[in-house]
Amino acid sequence: MSRLESFRRRLTAQIDGINWAIEQTRDVQGDILEMGLGNGRTYDHLRENAERRIWVIDRVLQCHPSCTPPEADFLQGEADEMLAHLAKKGARVALAHYDFGFGIKEKDVEEGARLSPLIAAVMVPGGLVVSQQPLVGFTQIWGPDSIDRERYLFYRAP
Amino acid sequence: MSRLESFRRRLTAQIDGINWAIEQTRDVQGDILEMGLGNGRTYDHLRENAERRIWVIDRVLQCHPSCTPPEADFLQGEADEMLAHLAKKGARVALAHYDFGFGIKEKDVEEGARLSPLIAAVMVPGGLVVSQQPLVGFTQIWGPDSIDRERYLFYRAP
Repeated sequence: MSRLESFRRRLTAQIDGINWAIEQTRDVQGDILEMGLGNGRTYDHLRENAERRIWVIDRVLQCHPSCTPPEADFLQGEADEMLAHLAKKGARVALAHYDFGFGIKEKDVEEGARLSPLIAAVMVPGGLVVSQQPLVGFTQIWGPDSIDRERYLFYRAP
Repeated sequence: MSRLESFRRRLTAQIDGINWAIEQTRDVQGDILEMGLGNGRTYDHLRENAERRIWVIDRVLQCHPSCTPPEADFLQGEADEMLAHLAKKGARVALAHYDFGFGIKEKDVEEGARLSPLIAAVMVPGGLVVSQQPLVGFTQIWGPDSIDRERYLFYRAP
């Protein structure tokens, strides 16, 4: 499989995984949290498929103009601080998508572990976290069968 | 359709279009030319699916390390100059993939038109150019039915 095909497979896993998680959390009250806005494609997908408030955390706002979150929902800054800020605001998250990462595995795993308790603090019990990086302190669950278990991870909040 | 789904559709069009063009040029003698290396995903796909020399033109070498072209095949610099250099070398191209662009439509169309005669100069008669931007002076042909005709363009060299 070429890297082009592998990339398409990763995108498919992302779309299927997010759709599945939206479906699974349909009866869980709460907001959505997008960690890492990037170009805004995933944000746009969440926005189109789930009618909830979507909090967005990123260091910078450099998405496609059509995917700019409302100012009140965009928390610009370091993830640790922004997650703590969100908890203080009393936000309750039913579905979170974790897409932080530098592309350096060791560093990304360390960051995922460090941020995990801060994410847990804003999740409602039974809420789901969809992630490309391993997180700690959540119950790992299996997502849809079509997804390679190495590519996308699914966690339930305790 | 969300921008995430639209992006996957574009990738699928790219994969199908390149595979189709490789098949169509199977009996045409010549090399491959990749204009715009980027992260190297398309280069990797060409490399995996066609056993030909692949010339690569880009301003910078910033691909994934596993997709670095052999030094002798990588022409680093401005496209105009590098295409002229390739023609002078006597390279003959059976299949070209055009992936230059700034993401600003007007500028990209202007660049495609400006580079078209320089691309034509290295193509063998009957060779194909697969492109995301409109080119001039070639015969436009229809690619595979699965591809949205606005997304990918196919040209035959005169």
